[in-house]
Amino acid sequence: MEKVNRQRLQSLLEQFASFGATGENGVTRLSLSREDIAARDKFIEVSEEIGMSVKVDDMGNLYATLSGKKDMPPIVMGSHLDSVKKGGRFDGTLGVVAGLEVVRTIVERNIETEHPITVMNFTNEEGARFDPAMMSSGVLAGKFAKEDMLLSADTEGVTFGQALEISGYEGEAGNRLREAAAFVELHIEQGPVLEHTGEEIGVVQGVMGMTCCEISLKGESNHAGTTPIPMRKDPMFAAAQVIVDLQRELKKLPEDLVYTIGRIQAHPNIHTVIPNEVTFTLEARHTSMDVVRQVERIIDRLPKTLERCEVTSRKLWGRETVEFDGAVVNAVSETAAELGLRTRNMYSGAGHDAQFIASYIPTAMIFVPSAKGYSHREDEYTSYEDCAQGADVLLNTVLKLDRNASTQEEKVLEEKSV
Amino acid sequence: MEKVNRQRLQSLLEQFASFGATGENGVTRLSLSREDIAARDKFIEVSEEIGMSVKVDDMGNLYATLSGKKDMPPIVMGSHLDSVKKGGRFDGTLGVVAGLEVVRTIVERNIETEHPITVMNFTNEEGARFDPAMMSSGVLAGKFAKEDMLLSADTEGVTFGQALEISGYEGEAGNRLREAAAFVELHIEQGPVLEHTGEEIGVVQGVMGMTCCEISLKGESNHAGTTPIPMRKDPMFAAAQVIVDLQRELKKLPEDLVYTIGRIQAHPNIHTVIPNEVTFTLEARHTSMDVVRQVERIIDRLPKTLERCEVTSRKLWGRETVEFDGAVVNAVSETAAELGLRTRNMYSGAGHDAQFIASYIPTAMIFVPSAKGYSHREDEYTSYEDCAQGADVLLNTVLKLDRNASTQEEKVLEEKSV
Repeated sequence: MEKVNRQRLQSLLEQFASFGATGENGVTRLSLSREDIAARDKFIEVSEEIGMSVKVDDMGNLYATLSGKKDMPPIVMGSHLDSVKKGGRFDGTLGVVAGLEVVRTIVERNIETEHPITVMNFTNEEGARFDPAMMSSGVLAGKFAKEDMLLSADTEGVTFGQALEISGYEGEAGNRLREAAAFVELHIEQGPVLEHTGEEIGVVQGVMGMTCCEISLKGESNHAGTTPIPMRKDPMFAAAQVIVDLQRELKKLPEDLVYTIGRIQAHPNIHTVIPNEVTFTLEARHTSMDVVRQVERIIDRLPKTLERCEVTSRKLWGRETVEFDGAVVNAVSETAAELGLRTRNMYSGAGHDAQFIASYIPTAMIFVPSAKGYSHREDEYTSYEDCAQGADVLLNTVLKLDRNASTQEEKVLEEKSV
Repeated sequence: MEKVNRQRLQSLLEQFASFGATGENGVTRLSLSREDIAARDKFIEVSEEIGMSVKVDDMGNLYATLSGKKDMPPIVMGSHLDSVKKGGRFDGTLGVVAGLEVVRTIVERNIETEHPITVMNFTNEEGARFDPAMMSSGVLAGKFAKEDMLLSADTEGVTFGQALEISGYEGEAGNRLREAAAFVELHIEQGPVLEHTGEEIGVVQGVMGMTCCEISLKGESNHAGTTPIPMRKDPMFAAAQVIVDLQRELKKLPEDLVYTIGRIQAHPNIHTVIPNEVTFTLEARHTSMDVVRQVERIIDRLPKTLERCEVTSRKLWGRETVEFDGAVVNAVSETAAELGLRTRNMYSGAGHDAQFIASYIPTAMIFVPSAKGYSHREDEYTSYEDCAQGADVLLNTVLKLDRNASTQEEKVLEEKSV
């Protein structure tokens, strides 16, 4: 089994952490910002130094490719260099930097792969500057229309299209990822499970399905001091009752269901005014779409009125569970076992570019532990040894896929020649 | 019994409604704004037209005074011309405009009062531009320090002191209201009770005591998709439970207690993130301070932890119940009865300048009905006939107080001369 160079991986992760460094170990590297452009420039510099050629597509996605022995679809690694505001240095960046270190190791050991090996950086994965998240993988997979994406504006009113043009990273549509032997994304878990169980590698089977609904309670605004309780239509107490009721029902579903009320808004949200409306989101995720549908039914069964307030709900969005490619997942699983690492089969609760790429390319993901499950915050942390172990799995998975795919192709050729 | 001129009252109310008119029947007339200054200029123009002399004190409070037969402390009417953003045209303005109409009627009928009669406009009652509300009556009553008030800044960073100076309405401290035979404020109810019961005049006994607390639940922020429920510290569900529990306990207290959770904030308030903190306010008002204290004890008895979250509370502020002057309240009550109006004895749940003035001058208030209890919104509405009936009560109360006070003084003089 090959191993990546630990010191070099750490050093490159630290160099990337300097682009948009917050001073508190984190980074603010919004998509196509000055900091993101600096990180992209660095990506190209390192790629070319390793001997890879770099292309850019019309969504600004970067592709650094090392030629293989044969002119065939590449094996692709990758993730994203953009971050949320005051995010961590590992989320996304690890998958890109580990990809570069994997290729550098391959070159250094004079390993000649059959397939070209490509490392990708996806544009605007986080959606922290331009809505939606996973924008560019979504366009590649045909989930989002490019024309719509170009018009998505940040809080300053700058559109994605304008930012892309200004950045100098608007490439050719012809460079888009169209076919590949496999896509493998190494990423931090962003959850506490691996740390909790003491396992080192998450073999990601797919991405959980989810539903996200908005629930609204409409009452009547009035002066807090002058309106007798029986004459009120107070949506706040009604909302609290709905939340307690929802929790009671959701607890009856399988215990690995996750559900969150992350956003709540009262209007006008003044302490001396009875709100006229309280709105909150409920999102839930599970590997089984059956369970996700049960959550939606619980929401549908909410009473239409409560404490004289009108209760309504609407689905904001959802996604079906994405199952990754069995052969690629197996390659990850076998590789980790061969490296002697403790693994856990798991589904990703978070969304990743891999979930869209999986729709047309055999895909899998590798997770490494996140301390306390933290992500999207400055104190997000994965030890450099955990990062390196993930990169080892990535490296040997790529090599295994290269051998397997070549063997299959040879078999096909042999069969054809028979 | 005397009656005010209905047409003239309505016309003047409509003229004042043009200063800062929103186009939707309401007004935006923040304290010392251009619109407020225009209303003040109009106040002086009308006052002088009636034959009153106008003084200004160092807080910008206006005093228009009609001389009496004797040089004695005045009987004072008044309220405020400032409004909240997109407020109504009656809140505050009615008490000032009705005061002017009362004096005009007195002059027109050649009624000679013993006391001087003063109409006041208090500066920054709403506190919508400069915190706190009832700023200038608070300074007059010694509740707030003028030096602190001068430094209170609006959202643009302009201080009250600067705005006062620029306005041209900074007068002399020597003009402050120091003594008066009585203070009477006519105001809209800002609640639905009078409309609901079909009564025409609220005889206000005082202002309810209140307490306002902030309750905070601290958990741990994490990714909504990747953190198993048993590993969460989710303050949102805990907050909902606390709110439901609070409501259950508060319902056991006297039914005329009013309590409101008007403001709730989750942090970071993103639908895909478990909040690390949910904070809400609970305020409660009642005429009996015993009941108000019981609310505080219910909050004190909240559990210190709930669903692995830390529960804390702190009192933001409170006020003791203010009892108005028995003689002035009786004068209002008798006058309304003599006018054949249906009255209701009630306490104000809302705060008013009168509550501070009551600390050193015999004070009462008169309420007229608010349609649907609406106030602080453009569709706040009191019929012009209700306004006029309120002004009739104000007029005849002032005349009654003038007679009563004079009689008392004569008695004192007679006793002295005996």
